[in-house]
Amino acid sequence: MSNNLRVGLIGFGTVGSGSAIIMREKQQLFFERYGINIELKKICDKSPVQRITDEGFSPEIYTNDVNALINNPEIDVIVELIGGIEPAKTFILRAIENGKHVVTANKALLAMHWDEIFSAAQRKNVMVGFEASVGGGAPVIKSIRESLVANNIQKIIGIMNGTTNYILTKMEEEAKDFSEVLKEAQRLGYAEADPTFDVEGVDTAHKLTILSSLGFGYNIKFSDIYKEGISGITLNDIHFAKELGYTIKLLAIGQNIDENGIELRVHPTLISCSHPLAQIKAAYNAFFIEGDRVGKIMLQGLGAGKYPTGSAVVADLLDIARFHGKNNSLNPVMNDAYKLKDIKDHTGRFYACFYVSDRPGVLATISGILGKRNISIASVIQKERSEKSNVPIVMLTHEAKEKDMCDAINEINALDIVFSNTKVIRIEDLTNWEN
Amino acid sequence: MSNNLRVGLIGFGTVGSGSAIIMREKQQLFFERYGINIELKKICDKSPVQRITDEGFSPEIYTNDVNALINNPEIDVIVELIGGIEPAKTFILRAIENGKHVVTANKALLAMHWDEIFSAAQRKNVMVGFEASVGGGAPVIKSIRESLVANNIQKIIGIMNGTTNYILTKMEEEAKDFSEVLKEAQRLGYAEADPTFDVEGVDTAHKLTILSSLGFGYNIKFSDIYKEGISGITLNDIHFAKELGYTIKLLAIGQNIDENGIELRVHPTLISCSHPLAQIKAAYNAFFIEGDRVGKIMLQGLGAGKYPTGSAVVADLLDIARFHGKNNSLNPVMNDAYKLKDIKDHTGRFYACFYVSDRPGVLATISGILGKRNISIASVIQKERSEKSNVPIVMLTHEAKEKDMCDAINEINALDIVFSNTKVIRIEDLTNWEN
Repeated sequence: MSNNLRVGLIGFGTVGSGSAIIMREKQQLFFERYGINIELKKICDKSPVQRITDEGFSPEIYTNDVNALINNPEIDVIVELIGGIEPAKTFILRAIENGKHVVTANKALLAMHWDEIFSAAQRKNVMVGFEASVGGGAPVIKSIRESLVANNIQKIIGIMNGTTNYILTKMEEEAKDFSEVLKEAQRLGYAEADPTFDVEGVDTAHKLTILSSLGFGYNIKFSDIYKEGISGITLNDIHFAKELGYTIKLLAIGQNIDENGIELRVHPTLISCSHPLAQIKAAYNAFFIEGDRVGKIMLQGLGAGKYPTGSAVVADLLDIARFHGKNNSLNPVMNDAYKLKDIKDHTGRFYACFYVSDRPGVLATISGILGKRNISIASVIQKERSEKSNVPIVMLTHEAKEKDMCDAINEINALDIVFSNTKVIRIEDLTNWEN
Repeated sequence: MSNNLRVGLIGFGTVGSGSAIIMREKQQLFFERYGINIELKKICDKSPVQRITDEGFSPEIYTNDVNALINNPEIDVIVELIGGIEPAKTFILRAIENGKHVVTANKALLAMHWDEIFSAAQRKNVMVGFEASVGGGAPVIKSIRESLVANNIQKIIGIMNGTTNYILTKMEEEAKDFSEVLKEAQRLGYAEADPTFDVEGVDTAHKLTILSSLGFGYNIKFSDIYKEGISGITLNDIHFAKELGYTIKLLAIGQNIDENGIELRVHPTLISCSHPLAQIKAAYNAFFIEGDRVGKIMLQGLGAGKYPTGSAVVADLLDIARFHGKNNSLNPVMNDAYKLKDIKDHTGRFYACFYVSDRPGVLATISGILGKRNISIASVIQKERSEKSNVPIVMLTHEAKEKDMCDAINEINALDIVFSNTKVIRIEDLTNWEN
């Protein structure tokens, strides 16, 4: 095949159509600049042919039969952009079995079946490109896998889901509550009809599985990632955080710096307003990576979208083309035996918002329960009595053990002066960029 | 050679020793993870052998004869880390002639002799890796060349020199003037004894030559880059800028968006304090890149240093190893015939600081001269009379033509109410990250 790469595209949705359009518009340029001919031979989609002819593609390249791609000897690489586990997994494995390279943006599939897919690819000496699976157009996969190859990666911390970041940004900027912003996001197409995967942190955890596998060199299990979503975050939380100099972001945190094991967590997090991650608004993603030799680097870009993600898909195709059909990617041989740090062993600072009766002695009772477990308080906000008799008291703690904090909160929640469950959000004291 | 890459290193200074140490410490890891053996065979340096034995390297691999590397059939790749044009250029060309791959951090050499070096590499089918030449450990070369390959790059804007950024940061944070901070930086080893290349923007222009050649696909001539350094920036300028919501950075700006041609300029620039580039402090570098399909991405990292730059050198070695001895890099075939936008055709906003006598009518005279050329004023700071009779007046203009601004300033400087030459600094209204 050499410098001619014949592509079969499965899925002509948002990213599929974007990728196809980029292949077409840049075909001539790639050939002139690099001598590489990326030829889109077939598009397979369940929708009628009109969907692709509407975008100016010839009806001859359309099919609704996936076998016309994955069993086609005239196709060198399958681009899978239908998402989800099945039938995507079957299609990809059959394509690999037939000696075809694969490019995919399917983070759920990679997070759940990494080993199966890459073992098959290894056996058949084909490449699996997946830059588009994390970070949209921001080149985070290639950066970790190739540019930082000389490093032991210590930290991968990021905002990896545009939908939740959009919701949190709008809540903060427009003082609207979660459900209102979510509805708006659904109307604008920024959130799915069923938003669970995004808002409950599942999508972010898929991405953290991929990045931490690559970065730490272990077959990270998706189920090992601690997950908490943003659906419980209230406007009150956002306002109190701001008053204290923090913003709330859904962070993915992977750290391999602790003798207790690798930390893998996805949860809403208070971060200082002055940290660069706090500046990442709306649909942008950001990845803060620390390696033992490179120090800290940060990458930012649009985390999703037709063309940003299409740009990553097409970059993977060029990578495959220039390897002349051999799988020479830096696919680390990964170890299964990693030690996982339990979330209960986490130590950190916490934000807690208590809804309590406005009676004398309440603050003393709460701080007594915390103090008994060596949890000391860094700051408190208690506002004057409103018309209601229950008032929120907000505390930021100093460093405390997760387990102690849980125990204390359980004890506090059982008090009759407490009206509703206490909201606890972890604080992440990210080292400052310059230090 | 396959998966065994035998390395000859020329230059055991800061980056050379860092690269050698990383090769040694990660040799086992690379072999276990990727089956790639990076073997450091020879180190050539002018200093005595002790310099390398002090770092724990065996005296047998030391030589002060460069021919023992570049004519050595047992060496596959030459890592050139001595810097400067000669003898580095001769060494590199002879290594290429002998069929060896090359890795270099030499931005001056690449900026001045790009075509000669890459033509030679093309003829001999060897690779020239140069990730370490720009951005230290931040993977800007690979991102532009590979990850953004599907894009027409429209903008490359960045803080590309750590020394000047350190100086400007310290001036702003510690209210010290240029010469004081420069002396401090020299004492700490952040600035060279002869700081001209850094402070006058030459180093930044070298880097912009490399990035804009790759990004825009033309053989960009170093001499085509408009250059202005930071040695004329005063504390007053920094304070006034801050008062108006701006910070001063030495920016490299490459833009291919204008029918008048490609813009290539390096100069101190007022940018809004709220733009992410304004947050880049001290020795960090940042690269803001815009492509037609990916939108905006940004990369940040330590722009220099023993290990961050060594990390990039070693990443290039892995890239070479996995290509099995063939030059398959995405080296664009570049066009010489680009249209350059003259700085006189630049249109933008300006900061101007006039040192004038504190007499009635002065403001009217100045604004009259500006108004005559359709330069209108967006804001003015005039402080109350100090003890001296000359006072600074600071103006920010609305959009104006560079040529009109120059003419107006010349006319104003000739007035007898003007004490010293007016300081003019361009303002860059960088589109906001989120828009």
